[in-house]
Amino acid sequence: MRALPSTSSASSPTGVDLDGFEDFLLRTQSELCAALERVDGSGATFCNDQWTRGSAADGYGITRVLEGGDVFEKAAANVSIIRGTLTAERARAMSSRGRAEIDPNGGQPYEACALSLVFHPRSPMVPTFRADVRRFRAGGKAWYGGGADLTPYYLFDDDAEEFHGKYKATCDTYDNAKDKGEVYAACKKWCDEYFYIPARKEHRGVGGVFFDDLENDAACDALGGARVNDAEAFTRAIADEWLDSYLPIVERRRDLAYGEAQERWHHQRRGRYIEFNLLYDRGVRFGLDGGRIEAIMVSAPPRVRWDYNVEPKEGSEERRLVEVLRTPKTWAA
Amino acid sequence: MRALPSTSSASSPTGVDLDGFEDFLLRTQSELCAALERVDGSGATFCNDQWTRGSAADGYGITRVLEGGDVFEKAAANVSIIRGTLTAERARAMSSRGRAEIDPNGGQPYEACALSLVFHPRSPMVPTFRADVRRFRAGGKAWYGGGADLTPYYLFDDDAEEFHGKYKATCDTYDNAKDKGEVYAACKKWCDEYFYIPARKEHRGVGGVFFDDLENDAACDALGGARVNDAEAFTRAIADEWLDSYLPIVERRRDLAYGEAQERWHHQRRGRYIEFNLLYDRGVRFGLDGGRIEAIMVSAPPRVRWDYNVEPKEGSEERRLVEVLRTPKTWAA
Repeated sequence: MRALPSTSSASSPTGVDLDGFEDFLLRTQSELCAALERVDGSGATFCNDQWTRGSAADGYGITRVLEGGDVFEKAAANVSIIRGTLTAERARAMSSRGRAEIDPNGGQPYEACALSLVFHPRSPMVPTFRADVRRFRAGGKAWYGGGADLTPYYLFDDDAEEFHGKYKATCDTYDNAKDKGEVYAACKKWCDEYFYIPARKEHRGVGGVFFDDLENDAACDALGGARVNDAEAFTRAIADEWLDSYLPIVERRRDLAYGEAQERWHHQRRGRYIEFNLLYDRGVRFGLDGGRIEAIMVSAPPRVRWDYNVEPKEGSEERRLVEVLRTPKTWAA
Repeated sequence: MRALPSTSSASSPTGVDLDGFEDFLLRTQSELCAALERVDGSGATFCNDQWTRGSAADGYGITRVLEGGDVFEKAAANVSIIRGTLTAERARAMSSRGRAEIDPNGGQPYEACALSLVFHPRSPMVPTFRADVRRFRAGGKAWYGGGADLTPYYLFDDDAEEFHGKYKATCDTYDNAKDKGEVYAACKKWCDEYFYIPARKEHRGVGGVFFDDLENDAACDALGGARVNDAEAFTRAIADEWLDSYLPIVERRRDLAYGEAQERWHHQRRGRYIEFNLLYDRGVRFGLDGGRIEAIMVSAPPRVRWDYNVEPKEGSEERRLVEVLRTPKTWAA
C-alpha cells in the first residue's frame, strides 16, 4: 500500500493510502476525462466531485461529469473505493457464484474498487460507450471484472467490427491457450448475455466484452474453460484499450448530418438504456444499497423519451438495428 | 357473468363474457378517455389497441394512449383482464400478505382485472395524475385495490388540499366507524408509504389514497383497523372520483405561463417517476413477468431528462416542493 504521489492529477483525500490498482483507476480516470474534453472541444469540462462514505478510509469516490458538450451531451467517469463488511445477502450471492473464500454467512471485511464510465454523445450517429473495471478483495483473494460495450442508435457495421476486433486482440494477448480466441469468445458471450432486456427481447447494444470473478489462479473457471495468464494485467489492458477502441468511431461519425426524426429515435432508444439500468443492472442494484444515488444515476442519458409502441418501418435503418439487437452477430472472427 | 352489451363503447373480443366489475372498468376507461379528449381540445385522440394473451379467454386488454395533445403530452388508460394459474412465487407473496385462501404452493386458478391510468400534462404547472382500481379473485374470494395520487412539479397547496379533501369525503362515505376519517387516514398513509423512493429519500408526489387486499368481510384487516362497509362499492366510488378530483386542477393551472427553466425542472422530476416505476413499483415488476411491455411502459412520461446533481436553490419554489416530498404533509384533516 502506498500513498498516491502528490504529483498525480487525481488526488486522494488526506490519509487514504492507495495500492497500485486503485492508483491505476484514478490515473485512468484523469486521462480519460482530459482526452474527452479535448475531443469534445467545446470548452465543456468534467466536474470533480469527491465524496466519502463515513470516514474516507471506509469509502470514497470521485464522480466526474461533463454536461452539455458539443460532441458529448453527457459523459461520466466514476471511481469508487469502498471498504466494509460483507452482509449475509451479498456474501451468499458471491459464494453461490463460486467464490469459495467467501463465507456465505457474511461478516468478512472486503474492499471493492471500480472505475466505470458512460459517454452519451449528442449525435445519434455516434454510439454510446460504456465501460468499467473493478476489483473485489475478501478472504485473502482478489477477483477482477470489467468490460466495454457499444450502443449504437444507427448501426455502422465497420464500427462494430473494428471495436470487437480490438478487444479480441487484447483478449488474445492474455489468452493462455495455444489457439487464441477463447477468452474473447467467452467475454463477448458474457457481454451479450449481461446487457439483455428480457422484457424487450433485445440486447442493449452490439456488445463488446464483459467479465467478472476473474482470479490470478490457473484453476479459475470464470470464463468457462478459457484462461487468462494474469487477471490484473488483463483487466488493466482492457481499460487501456478504451479510448483507442472508441475515439476513432467518434471521429468518423461526429460530423454526419441528422435530423429531428433521427434525434427522436435516439432519445427513444436511450429509454432502453434506462430500462436496462434500472430493471436489470446488478451494479445499479448494488449501488442503491447505501451508495450515492447521484453517482449511480449519472450513467443516465440526458434527454430521453418514451413514445408508445414505436415500430420502425420494414427496410429502414432503425429496423435493421433492432434486428441485430434481437439476434447478436459475430463481429470479430 | 354476462356479455358486455353491444351498445357499450368498449367492446370486448368475441366470446369473452364480462362480469359487472369488469364491465365497469371498460365503461370507466371509455368515459375517461372521452373526457380527456374534450379537455385537451387539440384534436389528439386516444388509440384503442386491443390485445390478447393466449386466447382472449386467458387474458385480454385494451391499451389507450393519447400523445402530443396541447394539455396532455401523454395520457394512458389501460384495462387488463387476466385469467391464469398462480405460480408458487406469487402465491407465496400473497399468502404472506394475509390472504388465507391462497395456497402458498401456487396452482390455484385466478382472475385479475384492473384499470390503470397516468396523465402526463405538457405544462409543469399541471400535476401528473395516476390512478387505478383492480380486483383479484382466487380460492372463492375477491380482493380489491386501487387509489389515486397527484405528482406536482410546482406545488399549489390549494390543489393538494382539494384533492385530498375529495378522497377523504369518499372514504368517509364508506367508513364503517362512527367517527369518520379512519379509512382515509389509512389509505393516505398507505399511499405515502407506497410511492416512496428510498434511494432519493423522497416521496414521488403529494400522495392521495392507496389500498390493496380489501375484502367484503367485516373481519378484513387490510386497513389496519379501519373498515369499509362494501369493498367493491368503495373501489368503484374511488374511480368515480377521479375526474372530479383532477380536472378542476387542470383547468386552474393549464394556462399559467412558464419558461425553459420550469420545463427543464419538469423533465428532471419526471425522471423520478421513471425511477420509482422501474426500481420499486410492484405493478411494473408483476407486469414484466409475461405482460405486454408497451402496455406497461406506456406509463412513462414522454420527455424526461437526467442532469447531474440538481439542487434547487434555498427559498425557491423547486426547493419547497422537494421539502414537502421529503416529509409528507397532512392535506385534509
